[in-house]
This record gives sequence, structure tokens and C-alpha cells, in this order.
Amino acid sequence: MSKPFRIGIAGLGTVGAGVVKAVRSHEALLAERAGRKIQITHISARSKNKDRGVDLSGMQWLDNPEDLAAQDLDAVVELIGGAEGPARTLVQKSLEKGTDVVTANKAMLAHHGHELAALAEKNNSSLSFEASVAGCIPIIKSLREGFSANQVDSVYGILNGTCNYILTQMRETGRDFADVLKEAQDKGYAEADPAFDIEGKDAGHKICILAALAFGVRPDFKSVAMTGISAITQEDIRFAGELGYKIKLLGIAKFSGGRVLQSVEPCLVPAASTLGAVEDVMNAVSVRCDLAQMPMLTGRGAGEMPTSSAVLADIIDLARGVRVAPFGVPASKLKTAQAQDAGESMTRHYMRLTVLDQPGVIADVAAILRDKKISIESMLQRGRDPGQPVPVIMKTHKARRADMTEACRQIEALNSSVQKPSVLRIEDGL
Amino acid sequence: MSKPFRIGIAGLGTVGAGVVKAVRSHEALLAERAGRKIQITHISARSKNKDRGVDLSGMQWLDNPEDLAAQDLDAVVELIGGAEGPARTLVQKSLEKGTDVVTANKAMLAHHGHELAALAEKNNSSLSFEASVAGCIPIIKSLREGFSANQVDSVYGILNGTCNYILTQMRETGRDFADVLKEAQDKGYAEADPAFDIEGKDAGHKICILAALAFGVRPDFKSVAMTGISAITQEDIRFAGELGYKIKLLGIAKFSGGRVLQSVEPCLVPAASTLGAVEDVMNAVSVRCDLAQMPMLTGRGAGEMPTSSAVLADIIDLARGVRVAPFGVPASKLKTAQAQDAGESMTRHYMRLTVLDQPGVIADVAAILRDKKISIESMLQRGRDPGQPVPVIMKTHKARRADMTEACRQIEALNSSVQKPSVLRIEDGL
Repeated sequence: MSKPFRIGIAGLGTVGAGVVKAVRSHEALLAERAGRKIQITHISARSKNKDRGVDLSGMQWLDNPEDLAAQDLDAVVELIGGAEGPARTLVQKSLEKGTDVVTANKAMLAHHGHELAALAEKNNSSLSFEASVAGCIPIIKSLREGFSANQVDSVYGILNGTCNYILTQMRETGRDFADVLKEAQDKGYAEADPAFDIEGKDAGHKICILAALAFGVRPDFKSVAMTGISAITQEDIRFAGELGYKIKLLGIAKFSGGRVLQSVEPCLVPAASTLGAVEDVMNAVSVRCDLAQMPMLTGRGAGEMPTSSAVLADIIDLARGVRVAPFGVPASKLKTAQAQDAGESMTRHYMRLTVLDQPGVIADVAAILRDKKISIESMLQRGRDPGQPVPVIMKTHKARRADMTEACRQIEALNSSVQKPSVLRIEDGL
Repeated sequence: MSKPFRIGIAGLGTVGAGVVKAVRSHEALLAERAGRKIQITHISARSKNKDRGVDLSGMQWLDNPEDLAAQDLDAVVELIGGAEGPARTLVQKSLEKGTDVVTANKAMLAHHGHELAALAEKNNSSLSFEASVAGCIPIIKSLREGFSANQVDSVYGILNGTCNYILTQMRETGRDFADVLKEAQDKGYAEADPAFDIEGKDAGHKICILAALAFGVRPDFKSVAMTGISAITQEDIRFAGELGYKIKLLGIAKFSGGRVLQSVEPCLVPAASTLGAVEDVMNAVSVRCDLAQMPMLTGRGAGEMPTSSAVLADIIDLARGVRVAPFGVPASKLKTAQAQDAGESMTRHYMRLTVLDQPGVIADVAAILRDKKISIESMLQRGRDPGQPVPVIMKTHKARRADMTEACRQIEALNSSVQKPSVLRIEDGL
């Protein structure tokens, strides 16, 4: 057997500790699959004395993670996180030195992916990041290699387990957003500060990386339109269900007419679809492409061992000598994405109004929609309560998103409107 | 850009013609992704003059496919099919010469996979077969690379699109097996001689290949227990539905206690599970493993372009210089699988009896089950018709399959039994 593949790990949070544990527990299996022993020779994290329940014996401790770049290593494994700071510096220094890098850092790739890929290429080093998107799901490898012969039209992902858990629980238990969020925090599924997850930024980083791989463009995080799930109510979930849909926070990337649309928003997806069956903390990515048609990958998108599975797959690839350009093509071939304004996108929409139950209201609403050329497919007013607020649910035919937004503004301004309308994209055919 | 990657294709059936079309239509895309032009220089098929709707200009025709092995090629693409004959000879000769081989030939791999992997290794050539299982789904790559750090416990696959289509249509339309099969044949989803598909042999070849990859064993087709779907009735489908299940033809591979269980049989899977949501001609593979837990891949398992997508992914890998041992580890490390007798497997079971509606029948049945240590979880007799045949549905707790089979034999022998009982495995937790 060849000499050991020596790695240094920066960061011993959930994933870092998981990788150390798995390298210990799977020593023989990893050696057989990689064709050589995987050996953690160096390690660095914020606090040396914290008990993480992992055995760090035989590994050299470095107080400064950036010093890993100066060691004689086959690969540096960056699990610190954050787009800037020590993570970025360590990755840059390592690549410059010609050392391969494995990282789970979605923020860094969404912001600096192109620059880092170019740096890797220039220095003949590798940059691997399977663990940055959707945990254990090999979606990076699948887009870069498995579907490499395909022209990809679009990618749809359930990319944030916390949000999927909250939406699933809201639907199954009838409880409100705030209530379920608190439970998710108690269970450790949601962070104490959940904004990053529930406002869609985490999924935004991920869809940006997937768009780059799918369309051969430079990651362009600033163009990702993001809407979170905090405004979703029980009424929305119930009415969506009556229409045969579930509400899912989707990361969406589409390529058409030379433009790239990137968005994260709660959408209605058919309840009986394969994507609709993805519940709780599970992630899924559905790829629409010209040869393979619509393959989908599902699995755990977070957690110690599922994410370690992805980190280790990258390490085994490198130990086996498998090297592919970070985004599948040379960095110089990655085009600058021409962003499509999310307002220009056309889909069917779900709209929930809360209006006073009085004559003429629907006529007013219908006139506003007509003037915006929005055609109503179906309308539903459940129950009657003259003079009081009642919900009215509409499903539109395909309409421009910006027209929907403007129509909602005008409907909200009606005297009979008592609440801001809720508008959600419908994604059929998944 | 490097010099072209020259391939020769043997076989111009659905997949072969698809690959030629896709290489023509995706020329620039393939060149960009592979880093070099993909060029079909030689071609061979049974009939030279047949119109396949593809442009073969610029390709040298060979009457004998085996002559491809003598050409100066970067890879030979074998799409003839069949475990023996010209396909096997061509692959052997090519590997011996040191030429890489890409194939979609599941029968050949199930029967001769280990011997061919050893031959490739000895001659420093590659053997790639993504298209042999589940069409466009990158399950070979995922098991070999994406989940390479995992100990795999089991693999569950919906691996035959024809069977999945028939079972889906039977459930959705209430029609009988024979009727739906005929429609599938008219639509081109089923062959004129459908035995290979509906008796489970096609899925058997595929689960055998997946078992080898998942558990690091030599493909062992002779140990695959296969039961098809022709005995499934409308009653089974309806009662399964009432119990919250769908009937799917599953390929199952399990590794426990050093033994490998391989089987193909119709099973009850939870209707609301992600595997239960895989309908019509779609395929899916769910992998149960220790780090990633239970990832699943879904997509089109057959057809011209989905299968071409997989063939071309293998070709691009080779053109990029990506080379991994065919089964992930050196052929010499592949263990000889110790087959587990399918009769020894333990699961819950569904059982449908057709018995005369008369006193004492259930007592007789219950006594037989008791003597075989089979515990009844629930029982259902819908409707009453004294003295006439009525269906009785039972769900058992976990029981040994061989005990179920013997109990059925005894129940069938009862005077009150008017039909052979139907027994199906229940696979929960998918």
C-alpha cells in the first residue's frame, strides 16, 4: 500500500469533531477504499482544552489554523466556516502552496468560489467542497461528474433542514411558526439565532454554488433573491393542502435566454411529487436537464456524520488521485452570470387575501388583476361572515412575479383589505 | 486543448444510437466539460444499412464488433448487451490491450464482473458501467465515490421501470396485471417478450452489481432470489393501500453477520415514504449506511437519452483522467460473498388468504401460524358471505421467511382454503 495520505483539520465544531471520530472508527475501511491510510497529522481549533469527546492523540496541535498551510500535508480540511477571516486565509495560503483543500464552507464558496478555483488551478492544487451543500447528498459530484453530459435547465433544492422541519411540523401538528421554531431550537435543529436559516441565507449560499456548477457560471451570491419562511401561516399551509400542495422553502436556479435566476423562497409543490415527499430535516435536490431529464437526490442535509460522510468522500477522492476542476470546467471558462431579475420570472401563483365579506370586494380585486394581465385559475372563499374579515384564496395562471407584487400592493390599499396579501410561487411538474 | 478522446461504439440499439446523437448535438458542451473533443471514430452494429435516424458520417464502420479492440482508441463503448458472445469477447480483448471500456451491460457484469475487473486491473485499463444500473441515476458513482467512507448495511432499489409502471397503473386505474401489461407493450414500455422484466431478472442483475459495490464483494448473480410481479392482484394492491402501503418490486441487498442477502420481490413500502412516491417508469435507489444514514437517488431508469447521459458521464470521466477501480477497491480485495438464504430473512409480512366464510377457519389459520411462531399484528376480513370464499388480510410481526412459506403451504392445504395464499414482504422505515 502507498504511503499514508496526511491531512490537517482546521475547526473542531460538529463537523470537524465528526470527521476525527469517523477517521478513527473507520480506519481500515477508509484505507481499503482510498488505497492508503488516511492520517490526521495536524489539528487546529479555537480552544485546545475543550472536551469534544474525540481522541486527538497523535495529532499535532496548532494554535493558529493558518499555520496548517505551512505543514507538509497532502490536504488541508477547512471546517472553520465564514466567508472571510482565518478560513479564507488558510484556504488561500494552502492552495497557493499547492496543497489540496477540502472544505464545507458554503459562505466562502458563494462569495469567493471563482477566485479560489482560479487560485487552485494556477497552483495545480484541488478544491473540493461536497460537504458545502446538502450534507451527505453527493450533489456536487453528481452535477460535476454524474450529469456532466447534460445541459442543465434548472435546479430545485430543499436545502435547509431547519426550515423543512418547521414547515413539516406546522403542517402535521397545526401549530404556529413561532411555536415550532422554539421546539426546533430546544431540540437542537435550529440555532439560538435562527435568522441565517429561516431568512433563507443558508439556502441562498447553497443554491448559488449549485447554479455555478449547473450552468458553468461564476458563483454570484449578490444576485440571489431570498425570502424566508417566517411569514407562512397555518392558513397558508391548510389552503395549500386543500389545493393538493405542500409549502417548501425552495432554492431555485434557472438558466434561460442567457440569464440566470437564483432565488430562495417558500413555494407550493405538489404534495404527491417526489420533492413533496421530502419531510422534516431531509434535504433534496432535483435537477432538470436535457438528457437525464429530472433526477433527484435526497438525504440528510446536516449533522455530524452525514456531513462527515461528504468531507471524507472528498478526502478519499484525493487519496485515490481523482481530481476534477472545482466547478467541472477551468475557472477561466466560468462565465459571468447575467442575473435575471426575480420579478421577471413567470410561474403560477398562490395568493391569500384577507378581506371584508361585503359586496363588490371580489370585483375590485378581479379588476386589479385584470389590469395587470393576471388570469385567475381558481378562487376559493371558505365560509361566510358578512362584514367581517374572511380569507380568499386564489390560484393564478402563469404571471410575471413583478406584476403579482404590484397587484398585491394595490389590493392591500383597498378599503376592504384588512391584511397584506400573501403570495407564493407554485412550482408544478416537480 | 488536448487531442480528441477517440471512442469506438459497438451496438446501435436504443442506447447506442442515443449516444451517437448526443455526441453530435452536444459537441461543444462535451468538449468543454471533458477538456477535449469527444470523437466517435469507429462504429459497429449488426446491420449496416438499417436507418436509425443518426448521422454516422466520419465514423469507420466495422462489420465485426470484436475488431474494435484492434483499433487505436481511447475507449471502447460496449452497448451490444448479453452476458456472453461478442459483448464479452470485445470487452475482454479491449481490456487486455489496455484500452478503457465503458459498458451498459448489466448481465455481463452480474455474471463476470469480478473477472473483468481483475482483467482491467492487470492491464491498467478502466472498466466503467454507470449505465448498467438505473439509467441516468449516478448510483454506481455514488456508491463507489460519494458514499465511499460509509459502511453500507443495505440497498433498496426500484430498478425496473416496466414493473413500476405496471404496478402504478394497476393501482391508479384498478385494472388487472394482464391488461396493463398489454398497454405497456403497446406504448413501448415493455418488450414483446416481457419475461425478463416482469420476472425480476433485469432487476436481479442490477441489485447484484449494487451489492458488489456496496459491500465490496464479487458479483454473485446465482445467489439472487427473484420473484416477479405477475401474481400481484387488484385485491393485493387495494388491501395494501388500506394498510397505508404501495406494492413495489424491490431489489434488496443486505449485509449482516458476514452474509449477503440478495433478492428481488414485490414488497409493501409505506405509501408516504420517499420510495413510495417513486411512480410510473421512474427508478430509485435508497442506501442505508452508517454515516450518511439513508440517502436516496431517483430518476429515469431507462430510455435513449437518460441512459446515454450515464454512458457519456463515464466517457467524460475517462477523458478527464478520472480513474477509480471498477468496484471501488482492487479486484483482489473483493471478497467472495457468503450468501444468506432468503428464507432466513426476517421482516414483517402481508398475507392474503382466500377462505370459505365458515366457523373455525380463522382458528385453524391462527393455530398454524402459532406453531410456526408467527405473530399476527392485525387481521382484516372485509364483508361477510357465509359459506362463500372471502379474502382475509393479515399483517404479521417480524417472522422468518421460510416459516411464512411453510405456514402458507399448510394453510393452502386446509379444506376451507380455496386459493394459494399471497405473501409479500413489508419493508418499513424506507
